[in-house]
Amino acid sequence: MPHKTSTRRQWLQSSGALGLAATSAVGSFAQEPSNNLPPHVPTWSKGLGKPFLSPAYGVPSPHEQHVKRALLPHPGPYPTASRTPLQSLHGTLTPNGLVFERHHAGFPTIPPDEHRLMLHGMVNRPLIFTMEDILRFPSESKTYFLECSGNSALELKKPTGITAQDTHGLLSCCEWTGVRLSTVLEEAGIQKQASWLLAEGADAASMTRSIPMAKALDDALLVYAQNGEMLRPEQGYPLRLFLPGFEGNMSVKWLRRLKLGDAPWQSREETSAYTDLMPDGTALQFTFHMEVKSVITSPSGGQTLKQTGFHEIQGLAWSGRGKIRKVEVSIDGGKYWQDAVLQEPLQSKALARFRLPWQWNGQMALLQSRATDEYGHVQPSRQQLIADKGMNFYYHNNAIQTWQISAQGEVRNVHA
Amino acid sequence: MPHKTSTRRQWLQSSGALGLAATSAVGSFAQEPSNNLPPHVPTWSKGLGKPFLSPAYGVPSPHEQHVKRALLPHPGPYPTASRTPLQSLHGTLTPNGLVFERHHAGFPTIPPDEHRLMLHGMVNRPLIFTMEDILRFPSESKTYFLECSGNSALELKKPTGITAQDTHGLLSCCEWTGVRLSTVLEEAGIQKQASWLLAEGADAASMTRSIPMAKALDDALLVYAQNGEMLRPEQGYPLRLFLPGFEGNMSVKWLRRLKLGDAPWQSREETSAYTDLMPDGTALQFTFHMEVKSVITSPSGGQTLKQTGFHEIQGLAWSGRGKIRKVEVSIDGGKYWQDAVLQEPLQSKALARFRLPWQWNGQMALLQSRATDEYGHVQPSRQQLIADKGMNFYYHNNAIQTWQISAQGEVRNVHA
Repeated sequence: MPHKTSTRRQWLQSSGALGLAATSAVGSFAQEPSNNLPPHVPTWSKGLGKPFLSPAYGVPSPHEQHVKRALLPHPGPYPTASRTPLQSLHGTLTPNGLVFERHHAGFPTIPPDEHRLMLHGMVNRPLIFTMEDILRFPSESKTYFLECSGNSALELKKPTGITAQDTHGLLSCCEWTGVRLSTVLEEAGIQKQASWLLAEGADAASMTRSIPMAKALDDALLVYAQNGEMLRPEQGYPLRLFLPGFEGNMSVKWLRRLKLGDAPWQSREETSAYTDLMPDGTALQFTFHMEVKSVITSPSGGQTLKQTGFHEIQGLAWSGRGKIRKVEVSIDGGKYWQDAVLQEPLQSKALARFRLPWQWNGQMALLQSRATDEYGHVQPSRQQLIADKGMNFYYHNNAIQTWQISAQGEVRNVHA
Repeated sequence: MPHKTSTRRQWLQSSGALGLAATSAVGSFAQEPSNNLPPHVPTWSKGLGKPFLSPAYGVPSPHEQHVKRALLPHPGPYPTASRTPLQSLHGTLTPNGLVFERHHAGFPTIPPDEHRLMLHGMVNRPLIFTMEDILRFPSESKTYFLECSGNSALELKKPTGITAQDTHGLLSCCEWTGVRLSTVLEEAGIQKQASWLLAEGADAASMTRSIPMAKALDDALLVYAQNGEMLRPEQGYPLRLFLPGFEGNMSVKWLRRLKLGDAPWQSREETSAYTDLMPDGTALQFTFHMEVKSVITSPSGGQTLKQTGFHEIQGLAWSGRGKIRKVEVSIDGGKYWQDAVLQEPLQSKALARFRLPWQWNGQMALLQSRATDEYGHVQPSRQQLIADKGMNFYYHNNAIQTWQISAQGEVRNVHA
């Protein structure tokens, strides 16, 4: 085994594991002060700082401006999505300003007083709701990931993205607040033959998807808030559907219409797009669930390890079917696997942060993570996925990601 | 019993509980469409919206500009804090832009490359850390509330604040990421006689507090991230101490120095301030824990109920000692109490959202909430608190809050 790993406990029990002594061989690190006097007093400790409410709605430090949503280079005339900078994030949540964007006709700025939700079709009483109506219903808050089914799509055929933002950045996780869709449907009275639900957005694309009633009556939400505050405009303000664990575009934003029926509507976004082409030329339709997946975010593509010795390997894991049970990490391209530590509390259909202490010996390494969910679904290797689904599909690439660390410490996206 | 309440289950089982039928007697609410055609198509459904990355770091809707941090009217020449708009928030988290501010000399904008943390005193090896050093340590993420010990202080003698933001807005809750303080202390080697820790900030106030080593070695963190991204400048960027459940000012921001010793330092902020004056003229010092507390945020002061019938009573509960076990709600000023539903997962020393369905009958009501934590500590009434601690103390007012609803639906801050 070419690389030495250790458990957090072993690491914490060892003294000087970070090589913090001034005599350390690993280069620049924490230094001993020349005496016990306080360190140099910098200018910002000598005069008044900024006053309260500068600004009243706070913003990140000017030193964090590199942490932003970004576009991939795009072949067509228009970009199709902006991506979350996963490699710069900590913990499990995505701040609202960095939640990835995917929309089909730009995002509208809707005055909430003028927004309406129409509920019709196979119901006893068709109804039109104002936002005031929606906000009066009993509410609930849940932390869920949201992933575009096209996330990592370009990575199937060859390693394309440079950073984790490029390869996996159509992924975010928020605490969402809203009303159970079932509560609102019951208000209108669901007719017995209703088995499908149409959801339509108020953007100029009229983004439209068909949803099985079983999901609508399970954990689906009509969401108006994310991470404590009202939805952001690009996330569907003032109202969106949210289908936990399902492909992102089904959680229709700027939700204006729900219609109950007894068959799917075969809308554009479930026929010409968002289907998975199989080797025999047929297409899988209604592949709703985002399957179990993970990615190491540190060290990850575009980063550089500045020294050998201790590094914490970190990343995110998720499953559209439930909770993450286990994440294994390999540093030799999948020959040997070791269990990472999962951050508690683990929540169903939410991002889980995993961590593993590691001593880098300065040799080439191939970092991989493999997630398993509570139902025993295991994240496949790229080879396994291709054996199963061929090379012609685009959506739902949940293959294991490999980051290569060179002897110089440079981290690169590769296929292993 | 003048008011009728019901459980969520009872409410959901009743049909038409919201009075949604067009024939409803409760005034304007969801309407039946005149036919099954889609509703009026608004202008924002007819043309392209804003493109991606507008802006790259997203901002709230222009229709949410009223949701902001705010100052209370202040007697002196300078304000002392900005407050979180609790009455406009949903769920349990506070978005970073709305986390309350309390600082003593403005907030500095520190270049992270130039920041240093010095660790000295009763340690085997005094050390100076760069931010790169700190970020290499093993990390953890935890959701904790943060409350200024002066929160609600002005409410003890008479009802003063108009809104929940005024009365309880020195309160926020985030997912914090950092390194265990114990891990960093062990790196330097803790000497046996060390029983207290001095923490000093790099702002111009050199905010300084003494902390018992037992807390430092328990759940204390050196925090560099909140809600997924790096700390905001006004929250201590690039590094702060975080002492879960302790009064806010002890979680020293812009942390520049930690010194181990065998006695507290009797700093300005633990002698002239942040002590609690008792009826006999002595002062309680080192009242670290924020005791069990709660507040109803909806309906709350400054709001107006627009109709009788269904309303969800909602609020937040927290304890600096652990998890919330129970929140009771009264609508008659404390004569009759009913258990609210607590949002899962409940996390130790974090905000808990509670909810109770309620049918308002249009009569005057006195809304109160009473929290109990996992150790059985019960939030006191104002009368109980005064009987215990007198009227001369300022910090640590955790009394039950009363909101009066008039027959016109106006909600007002009162003492009951």
